[in-house]
Amino acid sequence: MIEDLVDRLRLVRSPGIGPVTYRQLIARFGTPDAALAAVPDLARRGGGKVPALRSRDDAEREIAKVEKLGAKWLALGQGLYPRLLAELEDAPPLLIVKGDLKLLDKQAVAIVGARNASAAACRFARGLAHDLGQNDLAVVSGLARGIDSAAHDGALETGTVGVVAGGVDVFYPPENERRQKALYERGLVIAEMPPGTEPRARHFPYRNRIIAGMASGTVVVEAAPRSGSLITARLAAEAGREVLAVPGSPLDPRAQGCNQLIRDGATLIQDAAEVVEALRPMQSLVRSEPTPYEPFEHMNGDDALNVVEELLGPSPVPVDEIIRLSGASAGAVQMALLELDLAGRLERHAGNKVSLVSA
Amino acid sequence: MIEDLVDRLRLVRSPGIGPVTYRQLIARFGTPDAALAAVPDLARRGGGKVPALRSRDDAEREIAKVEKLGAKWLALGQGLYPRLLAELEDAPPLLIVKGDLKLLDKQAVAIVGARNASAAACRFARGLAHDLGQNDLAVVSGLARGIDSAAHDGALETGTVGVVAGGVDVFYPPENERRQKALYERGLVIAEMPPGTEPRARHFPYRNRIIAGMASGTVVVEAAPRSGSLITARLAAEAGREVLAVPGSPLDPRAQGCNQLIRDGATLIQDAAEVVEALRPMQSLVRSEPTPYEPFEHMNGDDALNVVEELLGPSPVPVDEIIRLSGASAGAVQMALLELDLAGRLERHAGNKVSLVSA
Repeated sequence: MIEDLVDRLRLVRSPGIGPVTYRQLIARFGTPDAALAAVPDLARRGGGKVPALRSRDDAEREIAKVEKLGAKWLALGQGLYPRLLAELEDAPPLLIVKGDLKLLDKQAVAIVGARNASAAACRFARGLAHDLGQNDLAVVSGLARGIDSAAHDGALETGTVGVVAGGVDVFYPPENERRQKALYERGLVIAEMPPGTEPRARHFPYRNRIIAGMASGTVVVEAAPRSGSLITARLAAEAGREVLAVPGSPLDPRAQGCNQLIRDGATLIQDAAEVVEALRPMQSLVRSEPTPYEPFEHMNGDDALNVVEELLGPSPVPVDEIIRLSGASAGAVQMALLELDLAGRLERHAGNKVSLVSA
Repeated sequence: MIEDLVDRLRLVRSPGIGPVTYRQLIARFGTPDAALAAVPDLARRGGGKVPALRSRDDAEREIAKVEKLGAKWLALGQGLYPRLLAELEDAPPLLIVKGDLKLLDKQAVAIVGARNASAAACRFARGLAHDLGQNDLAVVSGLARGIDSAAHDGALETGTVGVVAGGVDVFYPPENERRQKALYERGLVIAEMPPGTEPRARHFPYRNRIIAGMASGTVVVEAAPRSGSLITARLAAEAGREVLAVPGSPLDPRAQGCNQLIRDGATLIQDAAEVVEALRPMQSLVRSEPTPYEPFEHMNGDDALNVVEELLGPSPVPVDEIIRLSGASAGAVQMALLELDLAGRLERHAGNKVSLVSA
């Protein structure tokens, strides 16, 4: 997998190759290394300068940095990469994730809203996140001040995913350092940018598409007109996801954004039960087969081994579940399990369950 | 017209003849007196007892009482009877009205809500009614405490219609006496029940259908679940009218009714502009030709004379407008105007306008 990852990362980090171009290159050339090799010719034939492709050294340095942080990579169309996110035309080709990867298998709901929301709205968001967690939903938000923080706090026990605009190791706003570290341990933090990236204004809409794209639906709690939360809601609607909004009195100016969303067709919601009801029809999509955007035959033995290793932990898990979660063929998973077994790293349990031998 | 009215009233006030039966009788027999004459035979053929038809004396006494109160009659399908209300299957065959009849020619919007609404909601309703009045809409409500009273107050300058559950001369709740009297002078009060009727619980749903039926749309401001306001909203929806609701925070229990209405498909509105926008498509219906439920050839010369007289006042009005408002043919109106002219009671003005000579 490492070679494949280096190639992917070189593509992703090369100037001029955005997520859509990346997807088109892979669709055309089949594999990242073939795409990399083709880029200079393509650019020449198009009459442009040959783009300065990111060097192998740079990519390897970033991969080493991610490993040192204890973070992992998720590649579009492979393994645990979020199924719904993969449906976006501009889905991130690579994600850097740190925390509990099993959260990626839950149906997710985004909760977003104003950074300067009222105390009442923050309390509402926290309660809503808690209740949604009790309903087996993973709560996704942006680790920002206000509603985002309240949503993460409410769902900390049951599972919450923070998508950051900068690097996975950068705390923004700084006072959220403790919250983000809690998510490393008990939740999950996702970043698209390289480690160490300080978030800039232009990063936030990209971050927002990941939030909206991962989730079956986005709940907006108290958002100002023309705010980032409304952008997230628009992205969710464009992706065919549910947009849900918490209403407020017309006498409360902070309710304007949500009330307008409802006028524009968002579902008014008042509690977790109404959110769950709205998202139920999408439940099956989350656990469906991986989307066919990227051909899966490209998952070679190393890929499968890596994915299976990521899925395993000290607690026994059914092999069937590993196969389903991995997105790889049953044969490839069985081969990877055999390799781990021969290496003395796998333990087999009753009921066709397996676990990793603790180090 | 008086004979016709006596017959209508005898039918309407007879036990067992509700609005739907009334409409079917008129559709079958053409005129109220033919319907009255047919009722005993019909009942006999149906195998029932002959119903105790209301006596001519009783009807004449009620008519005298209404006249003494300075109130008027409106008959379904005739003259100024509200066009939209006439569309209801169970439209009241007769209405007793006191006040400014010209308000019946305006597009109407109902504002309803809780009797024990919050001060903020009452202030909102008053402001909304004021702004809707500025947009040339007549504001209809139920002269109850809370939201109703606030709506009437807000639209007092521009035109407001109070529909009461009891008699046109009965003040309920008692503290609304001054408000109701203000509507006699500067607005309009509508009743379906005979003068002197104290409102009972069963009267309120009938009252609510008139409010919903007259209006192009019903705005609900702060209503409890299972409240009368929600019944009015349901009646409005069933009549194909707009249902509009003012949202509130899920943390505010008084907002539950409106939020649920919005979830059920009502339009969320935050201000008068949004109400006006929602009702604009129905504007033309208000000023359209009378509904064809009741054959208009039954408006004889006396009817037309009476209607034209009601439409005239000391200020000059275009004859075209009299024709349009009367629902009678141009010929019948011209004949009525000639009769008034010959009687020395009509004044003709430039621009084909007419007025009544002041007594």
